[in-house]
Amino acid sequence: MSAVVGSGGILAGLDVGGTKIAVLLSDLEMRARGGASVATGGAGGARLVGLVVDALDRALTHAGLAAADLAAIGVGVPGRVDTATGTVSSAVNLGWVDFAVGSRLEARFGAPVRVENDVRAAAAGLVHRRALGDVRDLAYLSVGTGIAAGVVLDGRLHRGIHGLAGEIGHVAFSREGPRCTCGLTGCLEALASGPAIARAAAERIAGGEPSSLGALPPGTLDAVAVHEAAAGGDRLALDVVNRAGVALARAIHWIAMTYDVRRIVLGGGVASAGPTFLEPITAELDRFRAASTLASEALPRDLVELLPRDAAAGAWGAITLAHAALPPRATPSPIGREVADA
Amino acid sequence: MSAVVGSGGILAGLDVGGTKIAVLLSDLEMRARGGASVATGGAGGARLVGLVVDALDRALTHAGLAAADLAAIGVGVPGRVDTATGTVSSAVNLGWVDFAVGSRLEARFGAPVRVENDVRAAAAGLVHRRALGDVRDLAYLSVGTGIAAGVVLDGRLHRGIHGLAGEIGHVAFSREGPRCTCGLTGCLEALASGPAIARAAAERIAGGEPSSLGALPPGTLDAVAVHEAAAGGDRLALDVVNRAGVALARAIHWIAMTYDVRRIVLGGGVASAGPTFLEPITAELDRFRAASTLASEALPRDLVELLPRDAAAGAWGAITLAHAALPPRATPSPIGREVADA
Repeated sequence: MSAVVGSGGILAGLDVGGTKIAVLLSDLEMRARGGASVATGGAGGARLVGLVVDALDRALTHAGLAAADLAAIGVGVPGRVDTATGTVSSAVNLGWVDFAVGSRLEARFGAPVRVENDVRAAAAGLVHRRALGDVRDLAYLSVGTGIAAGVVLDGRLHRGIHGLAGEIGHVAFSREGPRCTCGLTGCLEALASGPAIARAAAERIAGGEPSSLGALPPGTLDAVAVHEAAAGGDRLALDVVNRAGVALARAIHWIAMTYDVRRIVLGGGVASAGPTFLEPITAELDRFRAASTLASEALPRDLVELLPRDAAAGAWGAITLAHAALPPRATPSPIGREVADA
Repeated sequence: MSAVVGSGGILAGLDVGGTKIAVLLSDLEMRARGGASVATGGAGGARLVGLVVDALDRALTHAGLAAADLAAIGVGVPGRVDTATGTVSSAVNLGWVDFAVGSRLEARFGAPVRVENDVRAAAAGLVHRRALGDVRDLAYLSVGTGIAAGVVLDGRLHRGIHGLAGEIGHVAFSREGPRCTCGLTGCLEALASGPAIARAAAERIAGGEPSSLGALPPGTLDAVAVHEAAAGGDRLALDVVNRAGVALARAIHWIAMTYDVRRIVLGGGVASAGPTFLEPITAELDRFRAASTLASEALPRDLVELLPRDAAAGAWGAITLAHAALPPRATPSPIGREVADA
């Protein structure tokens, strides 16, 4: 992939998700130059690549630009990636398994492409863009359909030996608890992800517990609905989101005691619920702080931060990938070595 | 501290513990040149520094060397350290709080001194000495009176923003469970450390459960005795060490999914029990592997390794600190930046 060199001065960031593709264009100094958002309608596989190409074409056209203006392209995907080859090893929600999306886009647009897991890309982007100021050590904890952390240590993206660093959604918190999609029981993802919250509420309602959620039409009971009901004071919904928050607080404590980073940024679809998401986490962290001097030192008040809804962390993370895909001459800081030094 | 430059070609590694001081001498290529071991009798504070000085003097004399032969000194201590100043912030078992052991030893021996937490030093030493071959990413999990991990990522010692990276003994596994010394309940250290194992056995015997341990003289029921009883088939002892092993397996799983290192090395006083320590951990990891493809990938068979009892990881870790204290001209790889490149 390194043979391709883009001729222009525009970076394209593609945040490819299960429901939409977000495109962001920027110049080499990471000033936004345009963008586009395209619903995928759940398309996957080769069809999804076609939609990605269309989305980038559309964004370029809207901005008065062409493929020849591209210097590099970054692609964030919800799954596992072989970053060396730009091949998506496994992105179940996209129908991409051992799928060489990088080389396809390189061939189509004539610019180098860097592909990475979307949560890692977002973490790298937060550091690279100095979104949190002079922070070179952070974990970006994404809580949505899945749960995972992207981790930057001393300005470097930490991927781990098997590319599994930060896959904390699939660590068992207890031998009991709900069965996780990974096969284990009691995983963080089975306790606190969007589907886990919806399932916990549905099971308790089916068991006869009273809740305003019981009046919802079939198929509409999701984590957003549970958080809305919690915000409205529904006791069952409050208890469900509180239990998820307790599990997340424990995960945050673990993250703090393993990585010991400056910031833990919370994002993802479930986190966008805002106060009803954050409050039970903060309450549990406060319990840790009150009980333990060590915990209060490891969990300072400014450790945990909620990502603003309009932060576009995924798209900016993809731009950061594009920046890292520039030839060494153009950038002193390829991602994975030094993402923070611009 | 950087003003002091040792004149000789000998490195001294001092592993200072609550019960003994181990001294190791080596040349600059890390070939052993001598050593000494001195019981502290529980001495602390300034008296302990006197014993440390005596121990190093004795080792030098035995090896036919003198202080003028020292190029640098490394000191590993069970506690928190300000590595920049060589000051021990807090080492409860040594009676050292805000104690400038580094400058005292520099003044006495005329060689630069590097002080570090002993578990971190041991981790750095395992990589630096290539004790596990070409492994640049590992966690050294020490299980003894306390539980903590020293972590080397891509050849660099990972200390974290507050120097708390790897302090996983003080993360709550559950809201219930035994009270930990740190103030929280259900911490790993309260479930699986030496004192935790002894206490769990003692409480169950006091509650009337039958065990061969019930015949022990008062005050002799420690983790070693519990592991010996477990090796002899005592059912209560087996259950106690199994429960500790399950907790440790979960911690190992967490370490794997956060750091994603090549090896997790188990050491420390409790780990020296050997098979009765390792078997319940392996059994629980096998349960994870059997239930989850992801877990089996994250927990390969060669991930976990028991440190040999004669590895002297603490003393060699201190030698690695000494090596890192050499002036930049003498070594291309100061610890904390690159410990693995010799």
